[in-house]
Amino acid sequence: MATAFEPPAVVGFIGLGNMGLPMAANLLMVGYTVRAWNRTAARGEPLARQGATLVSRPGDVAEPGGLVLSSLADDAALEEVFGKTEELLRRLGPGGIHLSLSTVSPATSRRLAEQHARYGVTYLAAPVVGRPDAAAAGKLWIFVSGPAAAYERVRPVLRVLRQGDFHLGEDPGAANVAKLGCNFLIASAMEALAEAFTMAEKNGLPRATMAEVVTGTIFDCPAYRNYGKLIAEERYQPALFKLSLGLKDIRLTLQTAESSRTPMPFASLVHDHFLAALAKGRGDWDWTALAAEVSEDAGLPAPRDQAS
Amino acid sequence: MATAFEPPAVVGFIGLGNMGLPMAANLLMVGYTVRAWNRTAARGEPLARQGATLVSRPGDVAEPGGLVLSSLADDAALEEVFGKTEELLRRLGPGGIHLSLSTVSPATSRRLAEQHARYGVTYLAAPVVGRPDAAAAGKLWIFVSGPAAAYERVRPVLRVLRQGDFHLGEDPGAANVAKLGCNFLIASAMEALAEAFTMAEKNGLPRATMAEVVTGTIFDCPAYRNYGKLIAEERYQPALFKLSLGLKDIRLTLQTAESSRTPMPFASLVHDHFLAALAKGRGDWDWTALAAEVSEDAGLPAPRDQAS
Amino acid sequence: MATAFEPPAVVGFIGLGNMGLPMAANLLMVGYTVRAWNRTAARGEPLARQGATLVSRPGDVAEPGGLVLSSLADDAALEEVFGKTEELLRRLGPGGIHLSLSTVSPATSRRLAEQHARYGVTYLAAPVVGRPDAAAAGKLWIFVSGPAAAYERVRPVLRVLRQGDFHLGEDPGAANVAKLGCNFLIASAMEALAEAFTMAEKNGLPRATMAEVVTGTIFDCPAYRNYGKLIAEERYQPALFKLSLGLKDIRLTLQTAESSRTPMPFASLVHDHFLAALAKGRGDWDWTALAAEVSEDAGLPAPRDQAS
Amino acid sequence: MATAFEPPAVVGFIGLGNMGLPMAANLLMVGYTVRAWNRTAARGEPLARQGATLVSRPGDVAEPGGLVLSSLADDAALEEVFGKTEELLRRLGPGGIHLSLSTVSPATSRRLAEQHARYGVTYLAAPVVGRPDAAAAGKLWIFVSGPAAAYERVRPVLRVLRQGDFHLGEDPGAANVAKLGCNFLIASAMEALAEAFTMAEKNGLPRATMAEVVTGTIFDCPAYRNYGKLIAEERYQPALFKLSLGLKDIRLTLQTAESSRTPMPFASLVHDHFLAALAKGRGDWDWTALAAEVSEDAGLPAPRDQAS
Repeated sequence: MATAFEPPAVVGFIGLGNMGLPMAANLLMVGYTVRAWNRTAARGEPLARQGATLVSRPGDVAEPGGLVLSSLADDAALEEVFGKTEELLRRLGPGGIHLSLSTVSPATSRRLAEQHARYGVTYLAAPVVGRPDAAAAGKLWIFVSGPAAAYERVRPVLRVLRQGDFHLGEDPGAANVAKLGCNFLIASAMEALAEAFTMAEKNGLPRATMAEVVTGTIFDCPAYRNYGKLIAEERYQPALFKLSLGLKDIRLTLQTAESSRTPMPFASLVHDHFLAALAKGRGDWDWTALAAEVSEDAGLPAPRDQAS
Repeated sequence: MATAFEPPAVVGFIGLGNMGLPMAANLLMVGYTVRAWNRTAARGEPLARQGATLVSRPGDVAEPGGLVLSSLADDAALEEVFGKTEELLRRLGPGGIHLSLSTVSPATSRRLAEQHARYGVTYLAAPVVGRPDAAAAGKLWIFVSGPAAAYERVRPVLRVLRQGDFHLGEDPGAANVAKLGCNFLIASAMEALAEAFTMAEKNGLPRATMAEVVTGTIFDCPAYRNYGKLIAEERYQPALFKLSLGLKDIRLTLQTAESSRTPMPFASLVHDHFLAALAKGRGDWDWTALAAEVSEDAGLPAPRDQAS
Repeated sequence: MATAFEPPAVVGFIGLGNMGLPMAANLLMVGYTVRAWNRTAARGEPLARQGATLVSRPGDVAEPGGLVLSSLADDAALEEVFGKTEELLRRLGPGGIHLSLSTVSPATSRRLAEQHARYGVTYLAAPVVGRPDAAAAGKLWIFVSGPAAAYERVRPVLRVLRQGDFHLGEDPGAANVAKLGCNFLIASAMEALAEAFTMAEKNGLPRATMAEVVTGTIFDCPAYRNYGKLIAEERYQPALFKLSLGLKDIRLTLQTAESSRTPMPFASLVHDHFLAALAKGRGDWDWTALAAEVSEDAGLPAPRDQAS
Repeated sequence: MATAFEPPAVVGFIGLGNMGLPMAANLLMVGYTVRAWNRTAARGEPLARQGATLVSRPGDVAEPGGLVLSSLADDAALEEVFGKTEELLRRLGPGGIHLSLSTVSPATSRRLAEQHARYGVTYLAAPVVGRPDAAAAGKLWIFVSGPAAAYERVRPVLRVLRQGDFHLGEDPGAANVAKLGCNFLIASAMEALAEAFTMAEKNGLPRATMAEVVTGTIFDCPAYRNYGKLIAEERYQPALFKLSLGLKDIRLTLQTAESSRTPMPFASLVHDHFLAALAKGRGDWDWTALAAEVSEDAGLPAPRDQAS
């Protein structure tokens, strides 16, 4: 029977962005041997100094029958690395596992799972909830879906990255559905907070006071505390999570909803607010800048660009 | 200087509904002398057995310069008791305080505050957050607005009723703005959960699993736990808070928003969903039944009426 | 049997605004004896020069058993003139008819019809479709509801004012329902045109070209031609119909819809766009300025204020 | 200089569906030589009896330097016929013109125009407005975009098919933008009519009466007359234009809007109503069945399935 991936096992890592880099660093730290690839090689240098091997082609991260993690920006990036040459899958081969940490559509996961199977590779969807600071602290939440046996094998790796994980069954798309649902819920909470704060402000009750009574009573949880503070203070830069990426996630949500014939009117509305923000040149602001649409529609001044 | 209302002070209590009754009982229990009135006198009998005096006219609950609490269904009921004859205010008179616990519009509170002032009575808006079980346990959240001196005098009474309170300033409408904002946020969270669960269900991920990952990670707070459970299980009866009252609160929110020129698109949408549920005869169901609109629009079966 | 109101019959006229003034002038012109009242008496002077008698109290326009027309800004103005003293109704008395031309809610019409009946007066709801130029040309459309016999008696008067009329049955609210429905349809057409033109503009197709293909093919009717031209040219001032009045009409529509438990999501959305325009200080612009909300949400420049 | 395509010129015709078949028949009738291809060859038999030549491969319809018309269901079908083998383009070659009558996205038209140019072929986007009966009567409206010289050459052909056409400039996507805008405007008009009729019905005013006053006054144009009648009578079967195709067109509109950063809230809402209808199994009903969503949300009975 296949054994668990425990240090000092070799793990391949594809994608060293804001999320991938701290995750790979944490794996190094606990003793894994990390072979990493990133489109822009220079981004990997800090990791190399910590002991990782940087390779120049994606396929070179793979060990036959081993484990490869990927953390990429979107469906297209993921499909390009794994879909185009299939060199990586050929090398990974029978017994290999691909732990796919990106936020992509369930349809993409299902398609990749079938493709991987042709090489004997198991695809595990494993999107994460949390921002770069949570990644650095090993405090992500991870939703996993795919074969249970593969999930058991990668648990030692998951434990390095997360404060908790959920195995959501065999359908490779299930974890993506859960992740898209969470991001949609966050976006909806942001819009709702923006509307409540704006109504308060226009009725003479300060936004910060409204934030305090909301998070001090029935909405005492991280999402409302963190986003509530940013939206109350109208502090939309620098971005912790770019608005253009938020729009992308809501688009994936709406596509998933459409293909399953599920009207999601809140998602449509949030989508339109993100789109308006993008049209106004705020794609690189934090996605909480969605709230500025609500303020402006109430005749309040537009937020200043604080980037420069 | 005016002294605090401490037991065994006489307090008047207007309105012995699902919320008023347990609050009045708690005041009795800690030693207050309670004179109570309810439109339907019979509802007050349990309270009388605990030692309260039931009176037949609202005015009779008042002690000159004393304290009267009211807990009524809506603006119209409040305006009728305090507005029509003004007998109650005449008796309460200079130094008297009216602690108004109902969810009404800020405009109503402002109007009543002016009217009360003509009799030397101080109006304190004091809407509560929490359901009947929280009222019984003395675990309500209370938002107070109006003169600070009056707020200080009623604090001993508040302490009997609540787990926490917030004084939101002198504007008598401020507490109502905060309360409407909270109910709007709850309704929005319910709609968002309904959409996320329905999308999950139609993609093969059980509603209960989606509820678990949501409340087990970033939305670990009472509102999401409680409403998430009911919406995941599609258990909309019996009502803890009637859908028709939820619609009323959203209507007050939209009116307050309109009079301050604040578009609230989420509120408009939630309003339309509540209205559809009412049109289908679900006004007496729990307000979480809003979620059934989302399921039905996705072609899923309508929930069964479980009332009989 | 009661006879028709034909010239030189005396008719009373309440309300000499942009719509009332030309209508009263047309009645004078064909030979009616007109007794008129307006809150601001000075507005009636041109009419006096044409031969009308101006009176200083609303009640003085009425002839026992005669006909009074009213054209007022909103429900409140109508209720004040007819509701407060009831002097006018007392004078009008048995056999009298009140032809109510204002755009008010069906509920107001039903309430007034009952009140009028107590004096033997028949209330006919008769809201008009058309702008001041159509009123001046006697080219209004008029929707009438109330007793058929009364409708027959006033037809000679209607013929002076309109290019066509519809008797919509006995329910005094029916004509108001029809009128609100029409204004809602116009507002929806304006929003739809704004979205289509904005999408075209952002894809390189000029707004005017889009307007041309739309009204040159399947939408070749006055509403699309007139509003399409204004919205294509983004010419929102001076107002032919003030945006604040458009908001009022949509509010009446939503109230009527709510009291009959009818969700109208387009109406909610149009309401929110009107509200945003009002929040930005455009209440006195033409109601087509609704379209500016769509352009601004697409990142296009806000329209200049052309009032000064 | 290239000459106009006049009878008895050979024209190729790709796609003999509800729209393509009557168009091709009209070309035959006035003397063109027609070579036609359809995926399901049997559909072309009536045309063969009228004198057309049916070919078994798309490429066989093309004459070097000649004209090919296509009328296909969607972007995918169009891209498959013209994109896959490119045999058709190779045969058509320098001087050839492809008149593309399908409703596709502007992005698809732009992509195909570039691809065609590599073979010396000119791509003209030429989506049509009108239903099969208008196609049979040669009474379509046609929006054309692409090089002016090519437009001039195909005008003799257009004259056989249409009651009017518009040349919208050189951008091959422009005509598609106009067509999507028109379909969006129709869908919005249908939703608005559905809301107005439902409000009327729930207030005691018959749907048919409301339809009469609307189309008898300011909305006296084909779109409101035709769709108003169907929606007033709630006659949603058989389909003149399938709801699933309406959803497709609104999806293309939203994609075009998103790629140009244009929020279109009416389009989002109409999309959600079409999606709900599809979820309830009404994809093969007429797209006016969108109106049933409005009635059902108002608690009125669901329309009966009249297909069987």
